[in-house]
Amino acid sequence: MKRGRIAWEGAIHEVTQAVDGCVLLADGRMLAETEPTWLPPVAPRTVFALGLNYADHAKELAFKAPETPLVFLKGPNTFIGHRAHTRRPADATYMHYECELAVVIGKEGRRIAKEDAYEYVAGYTVANDYAIRDYLENYYRPNLRVKNRDGCTPIGPWLVERDDIADPMRLALTTRVNGSVTQRGTTADMIFDIPTLISWLSSCMTLSPGDIILTGTPEGLADVKAGDVVETEIEGIGCLMNSIVDDETFFGNAKHTG
Amino acid sequence: MKRGRIAWEGAIHEVTQAVDGCVLLADGRMLAETEPTWLPPVAPRTVFALGLNYADHAKELAFKAPETPLVFLKGPNTFIGHRAHTRRPADATYMHYECELAVVIGKEGRRIAKEDAYEYVAGYTVANDYAIRDYLENYYRPNLRVKNRDGCTPIGPWLVERDDIADPMRLALTTRVNGSVTQRGTTADMIFDIPTLISWLSSCMTLSPGDIILTGTPEGLADVKAGDVVETEIEGIGCLMNSIVDDETFFGNAKHTG
Repeated sequence: MKRGRIAWEGAIHEVTQAVDGCVLLADGRMLAETEPTWLPPVAPRTVFALGLNYADHAKELAFKAPETPLVFLKGPNTFIGHRAHTRRPADATYMHYECELAVVIGKEGRRIAKEDAYEYVAGYTVANDYAIRDYLENYYRPNLRVKNRDGCTPIGPWLVERDDIADPMRLALTTRVNGSVTQRGTTADMIFDIPTLISWLSSCMTLSPGDIILTGTPEGLADVKAGDVVETEIEGIGCLMNSIVDDETFFGNAKHTG
Repeated sequence: MKRGRIAWEGAIHEVTQAVDGCVLLADGRMLAETEPTWLPPVAPRTVFALGLNYADHAKELAFKAPETPLVFLKGPNTFIGHRAHTRRPADATYMHYECELAVVIGKEGRRIAKEDAYEYVAGYTVANDYAIRDYLENYYRPNLRVKNRDGCTPIGPWLVERDDIADPMRLALTTRVNGSVTQRGTTADMIFDIPTLISWLSSCMTLSPGDIILTGTPEGLADVKAGDVVETEIEGIGCLMNSIVDDETFFGNAKHTG
């Protein structure tokens, strides 16, 4: 089952995928997927994001692959749904997409053994964890301004239930910019796989329903500019669409504070 | 006005400080502060924590003071209320407290000017941002296991309204371990003050009600062990009490997963 969340006619609805390109409301209404406002398919609680979890991507960035999972947290301001816009800051010199398999936790757990890890998974969705590469030139390599800007993490459209995916460690990832493929990989190339990540994270904290693990991205970075349409797709999970706008276009003449 | 949140008789209550050592429920009941279960005084949304925001503390850790704010995020699993227990992991070699002024945001804003910053503050509370120092020996200096463990950030007891504090940049901070003073400082020694932090954070993301900024800690670290009682106090804001237990004592014979 693929489940989504949309805003439509003044309310938030849980929807399912009827046929490709359409959403089905619980009351039987059917909409084209272009009609509603899409929301993230789950309300994120703690979001753990992996840095450099594909060896080819670490190499591409000229970083050494990490020996333990490299994890940082993301705040709620950064998540937006399918078919929305992400702003490229006026002063950015390099902004790239990152197609990532998002693992949604469904059950509370601590010290979870690798062999039990999938019991704690509710399902999967697609995330595009955009990065503004400008702010890492610092002894401390702080990534807040790289990874936590408003609307910089489109997620969705669908939450796909765990048991609908035979092997989440063998899914193709593809990114297209304006229709041309720019990134191609497979979840098989993760350095730390899903059971390892769940076990490692839960070794020092409790995982809870709504927690999300963004499992990292393979190589294939490219700078994106205002006007670009970016599709991040994962085999069997869904295709997440997002467009880039610049700050001025996004805000128009709106007052910037308050 | 000092406001707190407690659990008592099967429900959550907002309380105020009647007289020192007592809490007043809205229905007129009065309790000794030792009676209820204290909760964090606000439900945290995004929590921004500052690293090395006091020059003396940066020096104490043999780190260079940062040139821009060094900010990381904390997840909801880490917050607990007043008078609760924090676990020292069995394998930790060094665990220290960090007495910090917590600034609670009360109004949504983006690109907030320094001179308008306090308009966006709801109030202040005390946080103790415990650190397990064992996990930073890594090229990437990841701090997830240092700073995001379950229950490692006691916060409270009171949210003090903004206008009740004449100058938040001139408050004494004091930590006592088992009654002896081990840390003493003043918020006047912050490298990046409250208006600068609000302006800087809101320059690249939207701040929202319930967001909290943990503004860093002055020098005076000490290792804490099971059995220690730690009080972190900020002048005019409150005194937050917390005790250290080891994992085994905390969980007793409870099953560790599931």
